[in-house]
Amino acid sequence: MGEEGVKVLGSWGSPFSRRVEIALKLKGISYDYQEEDPYGNKSPELLKSNPVHKKIPVLIHNGKPIAESQVILEYIDEVWEGYPILPKDPYHKATARFWAKFIDDKCLPSLWNALWATKDEEEKTLKEAKENLEILEKEIEGKKFFGGEEIGFVDIVANFIGFWLGTIQEVLGKNILTKESYPYLSKWTEEYVKCNIIKENSPSKDRLFAFFKLRHETIEASK
Amino acid sequence: MGEEGVKVLGSWGSPFSRRVEIALKLKGISYDYQEEDPYGNKSPELLKSNPVHKKIPVLIHNGKPIAESQVILEYIDEVWEGYPILPKDPYHKATARFWAKFIDDKCLPSLWNALWATKDEEEKTLKEAKENLEILEKEIEGKKFFGGEEIGFVDIVANFIGFWLGTIQEVLGKNILTKESYPYLSKWTEEYVKCNIIKENSPSKDRLFAFFKLRHETIEASK
Repeated sequence: MGEEGVKVLGSWGSPFSRRVEIALKLKGISYDYQEEDPYGNKSPELLKSNPVHKKIPVLIHNGKPIAESQVILEYIDEVWEGYPILPKDPYHKATARFWAKFIDDKCLPSLWNALWATKDEEEKTLKEAKENLEILEKEIEGKKFFGGEEIGFVDIVANFIGFWLGTIQEVLGKNILTKESYPYLSKWTEEYVKCNIIKENSPSKDRLFAFFKLRHETIEASK
Repeated sequence: MGEEGVKVLGSWGSPFSRRVEIALKLKGISYDYQEEDPYGNKSPELLKSNPVHKKIPVLIHNGKPIAESQVILEYIDEVWEGYPILPKDPYHKATARFWAKFIDDKCLPSLWNALWATKDEEEKTLKEAKENLEILEKEIEGKKFFGGEEIGFVDIVANFIGFWLGTIQEVLGKNILTKESYPYLSKWTEEYVKCNIIKENSPSKDRLFAFFKLRHETIEASK
Protein backbone atom coordinates (compact mmCIF):
# COMPACT_ATOMS: atom_id res chain seq x y z
CA MET A 1 0.00 0.00 0.00
CA GLY A 2 1.11 3.58 -0.66
CA GLU A 3 1.99 5.87 2.23
CA GLU A 4 -1.64 6.60 2.97
CA GLY A 5 -3.19 3.18 2.26
CA VAL A 6 -3.91 4.10 -1.34
CA LYS A 7 -3.98 1.70 -4.27
CA VAL A 8 -5.01 2.14 -7.89
CA LEU A 9 -6.20 -0.69 -10.08
CA GLY A 10 -5.56 0.62 -13.56
CA SER A 11 -4.31 0.03 -17.04
CA TRP A 12 -1.35 1.87 -18.60
CA GLY A 13 -3.14 2.81 -21.82
CA SER A 14 -6.51 3.82 -20.35
CA PRO A 15 -7.30 7.55 -20.22
CA PHE A 16 -9.82 6.83 -17.45
CA SER A 17 -7.25 5.14 -15.29
CA ARG A 18 -4.70 7.91 -15.98
CA ARG A 19 -7.21 10.50 -14.74
CA VAL A 20 -6.99 8.96 -11.29
CA GLU A 21 -3.20 8.85 -11.31
CA ILE A 22 -2.96 12.49 -12.46
CA ALA A 23 -5.26 13.59 -9.64
CA LEU A 24 -3.28 11.68 -7.01
CA LYS A 25 -0.02 13.12 -8.34
CA LEU A 26 -1.46 16.65 -8.31
CA LYS A 27 -2.36 16.12 -4.66
CA GLY A 28 1.07 14.65 -3.93
CA ILE A 29 -0.34 11.33 -2.71
CA SER A 30 1.83 8.24 -3.10
CA TYR A 31 0.03 5.06 -4.10
CA ASP A 32 0.48 1.46 -5.00
CA TYR A 33 -0.45 0.52 -8.50
CA GLN A 34 -1.77 -2.74 -9.89
CA GLU A 35 -1.81 -3.15 -13.66
CA GLU A 36 -4.96 -4.83 -15.01
CA ASP A 37 -5.56 -6.15 -18.49
CA PRO A 38 -8.88 -4.65 -19.67
CA TYR A 39 -9.04 -7.17 -22.51
CA GLY A 40 -7.94 -10.25 -20.60
CA ASN A 41 -8.53 -11.93 -17.28
CA LYS A 42 -9.57 -9.58 -14.50
CA SER A 43 -7.82 -9.92 -11.15
CA PRO A 44 -9.84 -11.22 -8.16
CA GLU A 45 -9.23 -7.83 -6.53
CA LEU A 46 -10.81 -5.96 -9.45
CA LEU A 47 -13.81 -8.30 -9.55
CA LYS A 48 -14.28 -7.91 -5.81
CA SER A 49 -13.87 -4.15 -5.71
CA ASN A 50 -16.00 -3.26 -8.74
CA PRO A 51 -18.50 -6.13 -8.98
CA VAL A 52 -21.06 -4.04 -10.90
CA HIS A 53 -18.92 -2.98 -13.88
CA LYS A 54 -15.79 -5.13 -13.39
CA LYS A 55 -13.79 -2.27 -14.89
CA ILE A 56 -10.77 -0.15 -14.13
CA PRO A 57 -10.06 2.31 -12.68
CA VAL A 58 -10.70 1.49 -9.05
CA LEU A 59 -9.25 3.48 -6.18
CA ILE A 60 -8.85 1.53 -2.95
CA HIS A 61 -8.43 3.77 0.08
CA ASN A 62 -7.90 2.12 3.46
CA GLY A 63 -9.48 -1.04 2.09
CA LYS A 64 -12.57 0.69 0.67
CA PRO A 65 -13.01 0.58 -3.11
CA ILE A 66 -14.36 3.41 -5.26
CA ALA A 67 -15.15 3.00 -8.96
CA GLU A 68 -15.93 5.34 -11.88
CA SER A 69 -13.17 7.80 -12.70
CA GLN A 70 -15.16 11.02 -12.21
CA VAL A 71 -16.49 9.76 -8.88
CA ILE A 72 -12.92 8.94 -7.87
CA LEU A 73 -11.68 12.43 -8.85
CA GLU A 74 -14.34 14.04 -6.68
CA TYR A 75 -13.42 11.72 -3.81
CA ILE A 76 -9.71 12.54 -4.10
CA ASP A 77 -10.50 16.25 -4.08
CA GLU A 78 -12.67 15.92 -0.99
CA VAL A 79 -10.36 13.70 1.03
CA TRP A 80 -6.99 15.34 0.40
CA GLU A 81 -6.20 19.01 0.72
CA GLY A 82 -3.63 20.80 -1.42
CA TYR A 83 -4.02 21.22 -5.17
CA PRO A 84 -7.68 22.04 -5.92
CA ILE A 85 -9.10 19.74 -8.61
CA LEU A 86 -12.64 21.14 -8.59
CA PRO A 87 -13.40 24.83 -8.05
CA LYS A 88 -14.62 25.71 -4.56
CA ASP A 89 -17.46 28.01 -5.68
CA PRO A 90 -20.66 25.95 -6.13
CA TYR A 91 -21.58 27.57 -9.45
CA HIS A 92 -18.13 27.06 -10.94
CA LYS A 93 -18.16 23.53 -9.56
CA ALA A 94 -21.51 22.86 -11.25
CA THR A 95 -20.11 24.27 -14.51
CA ALA A 96 -17.08 21.97 -14.28
CA ARG A 97 -19.33 18.96 -13.63
CA PHE A 98 -21.51 19.93 -16.58
CA TRP A 99 -18.53 19.98 -18.97
CA ALA A 100 -17.01 16.80 -17.57
CA LYS A 101 -20.35 15.07 -18.13
CA PHE A 102 -20.56 16.48 -21.65
CA ILE A 103 -17.09 15.12 -22.42
CA ASP A 104 -17.85 11.63 -21.09
CA ASP A 105 -21.41 11.31 -22.38
CA LYS A 106 -21.15 13.03 -25.75
CA CYS A 107 -17.65 13.99 -26.82
CA LEU A 108 -15.63 10.86 -26.14
CA PRO A 109 -18.13 8.31 -27.52
CA SER A 110 -18.61 10.40 -30.68
CA LEU A 111 -14.85 10.79 -31.19
CA TRP A 112 -14.29 7.09 -30.63
CA ASN A 113 -17.05 6.22 -33.12
CA ALA A 114 -15.66 8.65 -35.70
CA LEU A 115 -12.15 7.26 -35.31
CA TRP A 116 -13.11 3.63 -35.78
CA ALA A 117 -16.10 4.08 -38.08
CA THR A 118 -16.68 1.73 -40.97
CA LYS A 119 -17.04 3.31 -44.43
CA ASP A 120 -20.82 3.63 -44.25
CA GLU A 121 -20.82 5.12 -40.74
CA GLU A 122 -18.05 7.60 -41.53
CA GLU A 123 -20.07 10.65 -42.51
CA LYS A 124 -22.60 10.47 -39.68
CA THR A 125 -20.07 9.77 -36.94
CA LEU A 126 -17.70 12.48 -38.14
CA LYS A 127 -20.49 15.04 -38.20
CA GLU A 128 -21.42 14.22 -34.62
CA ALA A 129 -17.83 14.29 -33.36
CA LYS A 130 -17.20 17.63 -35.05
CA GLU A 131 -20.33 19.19 -33.60
CA ASN A 132 -19.18 18.19 -30.12
CA LEU A 133 -15.65 19.48 -30.68
CA GLU A 134 -17.15 22.74 -31.93
CA ILE A 135 -18.97 23.11 -28.60
CA LEU A 136 -15.74 22.47 -26.64
CA GLU A 137 -13.86 24.87 -28.94
CA LYS A 138 -16.24 27.66 -27.95
CA GLU A 139 -15.88 26.81 -24.26
CA ILE A 140 -12.06 26.86 -24.27
CA GLU A 141 -11.75 30.02 -26.39
CA GLY A 142 -9.86 32.70 -24.49
CA LYS A 143 -8.82 30.38 -21.65
CA LYS A 144 -5.58 28.53 -21.00
CA PHE A 145 -7.28 25.56 -19.35
CA PHE A 146 -10.93 24.63 -18.88
CA GLY A 147 -10.38 25.32 -15.21
CA GLY A 148 -8.70 28.70 -15.82
CA GLU A 149 -4.95 29.23 -15.33
CA GLU A 150 -4.26 25.76 -13.94
CA ILE A 151 -5.25 22.21 -14.86
CA GLY A 152 -8.47 21.13 -13.16
CA PHE A 153 -11.33 18.62 -13.23
CA VAL A 154 -12.44 19.23 -16.84
CA ASP A 155 -8.89 19.18 -18.19
CA ILE A 156 -8.18 15.88 -16.48
CA VAL A 157 -11.44 14.42 -17.80
CA ALA A 158 -10.54 15.69 -21.29
CA ASN A 159 -7.17 13.87 -21.22
CA PHE A 160 -8.21 11.61 -24.09
CA ILE A 161 -8.51 14.68 -26.32
CA GLY A 162 -5.33 16.16 -24.88
CA PHE A 163 -3.11 13.16 -25.39
CA TRP A 164 -4.69 10.04 -26.93
CA LEU A 165 -6.55 11.58 -29.84
CA GLY A 166 -3.43 12.86 -31.63
CA THR A 167 -1.74 9.46 -31.54
CA ILE A 168 -4.82 7.56 -32.72
CA GLN A 169 -5.34 10.08 -35.53
CA GLU A 170 -1.76 9.44 -36.61
CA VAL A 171 -2.22 5.65 -36.58
CA LEU A 172 -5.40 5.87 -38.63
CA GLY A 173 -4.32 8.73 -40.89
CA LYS A 174 -7.37 10.75 -39.85
CA ASN A 175 -7.53 14.47 -39.15
CA ILE A 176 -10.48 15.21 -36.92
CA LEU A 177 -8.87 17.63 -34.47
CA THR A 178 -6.48 19.92 -36.36
CA LYS A 179 -5.01 23.37 -35.70
CA GLU A 180 -6.90 24.72 -38.69
CA SER A 181 -10.33 23.47 -37.67
CA TYR A 182 -10.11 23.93 -33.87
CA PRO A 183 -7.34 26.44 -33.09
CA TYR A 184 -8.29 26.98 -29.43
CA LEU A 185 -8.73 23.32 -28.62
CA SER A 186 -5.44 22.56 -30.37
CA LYS A 187 -3.73 25.25 -28.34
CA TRP A 188 -5.21 23.64 -25.22
CA THR A 189 -3.79 20.21 -26.15
CA GLU A 190 -0.36 21.85 -26.53
CA GLU A 191 -0.60 23.50 -23.12
CA TYR A 192 -1.94 20.28 -21.64
CA VAL A 193 0.94 18.03 -22.69
CA LYS A 194 3.46 20.74 -21.71
CA CYS A 195 2.55 20.34 -18.03
CA ASN A 196 5.10 18.27 -16.15
CA ILE A 197 2.47 16.34 -14.23
CA ILE A 198 0.79 15.34 -17.50
CA LYS A 199 4.07 14.48 -19.21
CA GLU A 200 5.08 12.23 -16.33
CA ASN A 201 1.69 10.52 -16.14
CA SER A 202 0.81 9.86 -19.73
CA PRO A 203 1.64 6.61 -21.47
CA SER A 204 4.67 6.53 -23.76
CA LYS A 205 3.63 7.80 -27.19
CA ASP A 206 5.50 4.98 -28.94
CA ARG A 207 3.83 2.32 -26.85
CA LEU A 208 0.39 3.86 -27.41
CA PHE A 209 1.09 4.14 -31.15
CA ALA A 210 2.10 0.48 -31.32
CA PHE A 211 -0.96 -0.56 -29.31
CA PHE A 212 -3.44 1.24 -31.56
CA LYS A 213 -1.58 0.21 -34.72
CA LEU A 214 -2.06 -3.41 -33.71
CA ARG A 215 -5.73 -2.74 -32.94
CA HIS A 216 -6.15 -1.10 -36.34
CA GLU A 217 -4.46 -3.97 -38.16
CA THR A 218 -6.53 -6.55 -36.31
CA ILE A 219 -9.75 -4.76 -37.28
CA GLU A 220 -8.63 -4.43 -40.90
CA ALA A 221 -7.63 -8.11 -41.07
CA SER A 222 -11.02 -9.21 -39.75
CA LYS A 223 -12.92 -7.35 -42.49
CA MET B 1 -38.62 34.78 -9.24
CA GLY B 2 -38.98 32.65 -6.10
CA GLU B 3 -37.99 34.08 -2.73
CA GLU B 4 -34.34 33.44 -3.33
CA GLY B 5 -34.11 34.21 -7.07
CA VAL B 6 -34.72 30.59 -8.00
CA LYS B 7 -36.45 29.39 -11.15
CA VAL B 8 -36.91 25.93 -12.62
CA LEU B 9 -37.46 25.27 -16.30
CA GLY B 10 -39.12 21.89 -16.30
CA SER B 11 -41.79 19.62 -17.64
CA TRP B 12 -44.57 18.12 -15.52
CA GLY B 13 -44.07 14.54 -16.74
CA SER B 14 -40.29 14.42 -16.69
CA PRO B 15 -38.63 12.43 -13.90
CA PHE B 16 -35.45 14.48 -14.45
CA SER B 17 -37.24 17.74 -13.94
CA ARG B 18 -39.09 16.36 -10.89
CA ARG B 19 -35.77 15.47 -9.29
CA VAL B 20 -34.91 19.16 -9.14
CA GLU B 21 -38.28 20.12 -7.68
CA ILE B 22 -38.09 17.37 -5.04
CA ALA B 23 -34.62 18.57 -3.97
CA LEU B 24 -35.76 22.20 -3.70
CA LYS B 25 -38.83 21.16 -1.70
CA LEU B 26 -36.69 19.03 0.63
CA LYS B 27 -34.52 22.09 1.26
CA GLY B 28 -37.60 24.28 1.74
CA ILE B 29 -36.66 26.65 -1.11
CA SER B 30 -39.49 28.42 -2.91
CA TYR B 31 -39.07 28.78 -6.66
CA ASP B 32 -40.72 29.99 -9.81
CA TYR B 33 -41.56 27.35 -12.33
CA GLN B 34 -41.78 27.55 -16.10
CA GLU B 35 -43.38 24.64 -17.93
CA GLU B 36 -41.57 23.63 -21.12
CA ASP B 37 -42.77 21.28 -23.82
CA PRO B 38 -39.97 18.75 -24.40
CA TYR B 39 -41.60 17.64 -27.65
CA GLY B 40 -42.55 21.07 -29.01
CA ASN B 41 -41.06 24.53 -29.32
CA LYS B 42 -38.46 25.38 -26.72
CA SER B 43 -38.71 28.73 -24.98
CA PRO B 44 -36.03 31.36 -25.72
CA GLU B 45 -35.07 31.13 -22.03
CA LEU B 46 -34.42 27.38 -22.28
CA LEU B 47 -32.39 27.75 -25.48
CA LYS B 48 -30.35 30.53 -23.90
CA SER B 49 -29.76 28.79 -20.58
CA ASN B 50 -28.91 25.32 -21.91
CA PRO B 51 -27.51 25.98 -25.39
CA VAL B 52 -25.54 22.70 -25.45
CA HIS B 53 -28.39 20.23 -24.87
CA LYS B 54 -31.46 22.50 -25.17
CA LYS B 55 -33.13 20.27 -22.58
CA ILE B 56 -34.96 20.56 -19.31
CA PRO B 57 -34.39 20.66 -16.41
CA VAL B 58 -32.54 23.92 -15.93
CA LEU B 59 -32.17 25.64 -12.58
CA ILE B 60 -31.67 29.39 -12.77
CA HIS B 61 -30.25 30.84 -9.57
CA ASN B 62 -29.73 34.60 -9.39
CA GLY B 63 -29.67 34.71 -13.17
CA LYS B 64 -27.12 31.91 -13.57
CA PRO B 65 -28.30 28.72 -15.31
CA ILE B 66 -27.31 25.18 -14.38
CA ALA B 67 -28.23 22.15 -16.48
CA GLU B 68 -28.16 18.35 -16.00
CA SER B 69 -30.33 17.09 -13.17
CA GLN B 70 -27.59 15.36 -11.13
CA VAL B 71 -25.38 18.43 -11.42
CA ILE B 72 -28.31 20.55 -10.23
CA LEU B 73 -28.95 18.26 -7.24
CA GLU B 74 -25.33 18.57 -6.15
CA TYR B 75 -25.53 22.36 -6.55
CA ILE B 76 -28.71 22.60 -4.49
CA ASP B 77 -27.11 20.53 -1.74
CA GLU B 78 -24.00 22.73 -1.69
CA VAL B 79 -25.76 26.09 -1.79
CA TRP B 80 -28.58 25.55 0.69
CA GLU B 81 -28.26 24.11 4.16
CA GLY B 82 -30.94 22.07 5.85
CA TYR B 83 -32.04 18.66 4.60
CA PRO B 84 -28.94 16.74 3.47
CA ILE B 85 -29.34 15.34 -0.05
CA LEU B 86 -25.88 13.79 -0.34
CA PRO B 87 -24.10 12.18 2.62
CA LYS B 88 -21.38 14.31 4.20
CA ASP B 89 -18.79 11.53 4.49
CA PRO B 90 -16.65 11.43 1.29
CA TYR B 91 -16.81 7.64 0.98
CA HIS B 92 -20.58 7.51 1.37
CA LYS B 93 -20.85 10.44 -1.00
CA ALA B 94 -18.77 8.58 -3.59
CA THR B 95 -20.97 5.51 -3.13
CA ALA B 96 -24.11 7.61 -3.68
CA ARG B 97 -22.59 9.14 -6.83
CA PHE B 98 -21.65 5.67 -8.08
CA TRP B 99 -25.22 4.40 -7.75
CA ALA B 100 -26.76 7.55 -9.22
CA LYS B 101 -24.48 7.17 -12.23
CA PHE B 102 -25.40 3.49 -12.53
CA ILE B 103 -29.09 4.39 -12.53
CA ASP B 104 -28.73 7.08 -15.20
CA ASP B 105 -26.19 5.33 -17.43
CA LYS B 106 -27.40 1.74 -17.22
CA CYS B 107 -30.66 1.20 -15.41
CA LEU B 108 -32.93 3.86 -16.91
CA PRO B 109 -31.91 3.42 -20.57
CA SER B 110 -32.26 -0.36 -20.29
CA LEU B 111 -35.68 -0.09 -18.61
CA TRP B 112 -36.88 2.41 -21.21
CA ASN B 113 -35.66 0.13 -24.03
CA ALA B 114 -37.34 -2.89 -22.47
CA LEU B 115 -40.61 -1.02 -22.02
CA TRP B 116 -40.84 0.22 -25.60
CA ALA B 117 -39.04 -2.62 -27.36
CA THR B 118 -40.28 -3.93 -30.66
CA LYS B 119 -41.00 -7.67 -30.87
CA ASP B 120 -37.52 -8.63 -32.09
CA GLU B 121 -35.72 -6.50 -29.49
CA GLU B 122 -37.88 -7.74 -26.62
CA GLU B 123 -35.77 -10.60 -25.31
CA LYS B 124 -32.42 -8.80 -25.37
CA THR B 125 -33.70 -5.55 -23.83
CA LEU B 126 -35.62 -7.35 -21.12
CA LYS B 127 -32.58 -9.39 -20.17
CA GLU B 128 -30.48 -6.26 -19.81
CA ALA B 129 -33.11 -4.38 -17.79
CA LYS B 130 -33.55 -7.33 -15.45
CA GLU B 131 -29.81 -7.69 -14.89
CA ASN B 132 -29.66 -4.03 -13.86
CA LEU B 133 -32.69 -4.31 -11.58
CA GLU B 134 -31.05 -7.36 -10.00
CA ILE B 135 -28.02 -5.24 -9.12
CA LEU B 136 -30.21 -2.54 -7.57
CA GLU B 137 -32.22 -5.19 -5.72
CA LYS B 138 -29.04 -6.37 -4.00
CA GLU B 139 -28.06 -2.81 -3.13
CA ILE B 140 -31.40 -1.91 -1.52
CA GLU B 141 -31.78 -5.21 0.39
CA GLY B 142 -31.99 -4.54 4.10
CA LYS B 143 -32.33 -0.76 3.73
CA LYS B 144 -35.36 1.50 3.80
CA PHE B 145 -33.93 3.96 1.29
CA PHE B 146 -30.74 3.94 -0.78
CA GLY B 147 -29.54 6.76 1.44
CA GLY B 148 -30.46 4.95 4.69
CA GLU B 149 -33.42 5.98 6.83
CA GLU B 150 -34.31 9.06 4.80
CA ILE B 151 -34.68 9.88 1.12
CA GLY B 152 -31.41 11.06 -0.43
CA PHE B 153 -29.54 11.57 -3.70
CA VAL B 154 -29.88 8.03 -5.06
CA ASP B 155 -33.58 7.78 -4.16
CA ILE B 156 -34.31 11.06 -5.94
CA VAL B 157 -32.34 9.93 -8.99
CA ALA B 158 -34.24 6.62 -8.94
CA ASN B 159 -37.61 8.42 -9.03
CA PHE B 160 -38.43 6.95 -12.46
CA ILE B 161 -38.32 3.49 -10.90
CA GLY B 162 -40.18 4.66 -7.82
CA PHE B 163 -43.07 6.33 -9.58
CA TRP B 164 -43.08 6.28 -13.40
CA LEU B 165 -42.26 2.64 -14.04
CA GLY B 166 -45.41 1.26 -12.41
CA THR B 167 -47.69 3.49 -14.48
CA ILE B 168 -45.93 2.75 -17.77
CA GLN B 169 -46.00 -0.99 -17.00
CA GLU B 170 -49.75 -0.69 -16.49
CA VAL B 171 -50.25 1.17 -19.78
CA LEU B 172 -48.23 -1.40 -21.71
CA GLY B 173 -49.41 -4.46 -19.81
CA LYS B 174 -45.83 -5.39 -18.97
CA ASN B 175 -44.49 -6.75 -15.71
CA ILE B 176 -40.81 -5.99 -15.42
CA LEU B 177 -40.63 -4.84 -11.81
CA THR B 178 -42.94 -6.97 -9.68
CA LYS B 179 -43.13 -7.83 -6.00
CA GLU B 180 -42.37 -11.45 -6.82
CA SER B 181 -39.24 -10.80 -8.85
CA TYR B 182 -37.77 -7.87 -6.89
CA PRO B 183 -39.27 -7.83 -3.38
CA TYR B 184 -36.80 -5.32 -1.89
CA LEU B 185 -36.97 -2.89 -4.78
CA SER B 186 -40.77 -3.14 -4.74
CA LYS B 187 -40.78 -2.44 -1.03
CA TRP B 188 -38.60 0.60 -1.74
CA THR B 189 -41.06 1.93 -4.35
CA GLU B 190 -43.84 1.60 -1.74
CA GLU B 191 -41.82 3.52 0.85
CA TYR B 192 -40.83 6.06 -1.77
CA VAL B 193 -44.33 7.03 -2.85
CA LYS B 194 -45.49 7.06 0.76
CA CYS B 195 -43.30 10.11 1.52
CA ASN B 196 -45.27 13.33 1.58
CA ILE B 197 -42.64 15.26 -0.33
CA ILE B 198 -42.73 12.68 -3.13
CA LYS B 199 -46.52 12.49 -3.15
CA GLU B 200 -46.77 16.25 -3.48
CA ASN B 201 -44.14 16.47 -6.19
CA SER B 202 -45.00 13.61 -8.48
CA PRO B 203 -47.23 14.04 -11.50
CA SER B 204 -50.84 12.94 -11.25
CA LYS B 205 -51.04 9.22 -11.95
CA ASP B 206 -54.07 9.67 -14.20
CA ARG B 207 -52.39 12.34 -16.26
CA LEU B 208 -49.23 10.27 -16.60
CA PHE B 209 -51.30 7.21 -17.55
CA ALA B 210 -53.15 9.19 -20.23
CA PHE B 211 -49.89 10.63 -21.55
CA PHE B 212 -48.19 7.26 -21.96
CA LYS B 213 -51.37 5.65 -23.29
CA LEU B 214 -51.41 8.22 -26.08
CA ARG B 215 -47.70 7.62 -26.72
CA HIS B 216 -48.33 3.88 -26.88
CA GLU B 217 -51.27 4.26 -29.26
CA THR B 218 -49.30 6.61 -31.50
CA ILE B 219 -46.43 4.11 -31.73
CA GLU B 220 -48.83 1.22 -32.41
CA ALA B 221 -50.64 3.22 -35.11
CA SER B 222 -47.39 4.04 -36.88
CA LYS B 223 -46.37 0.38 -37.18
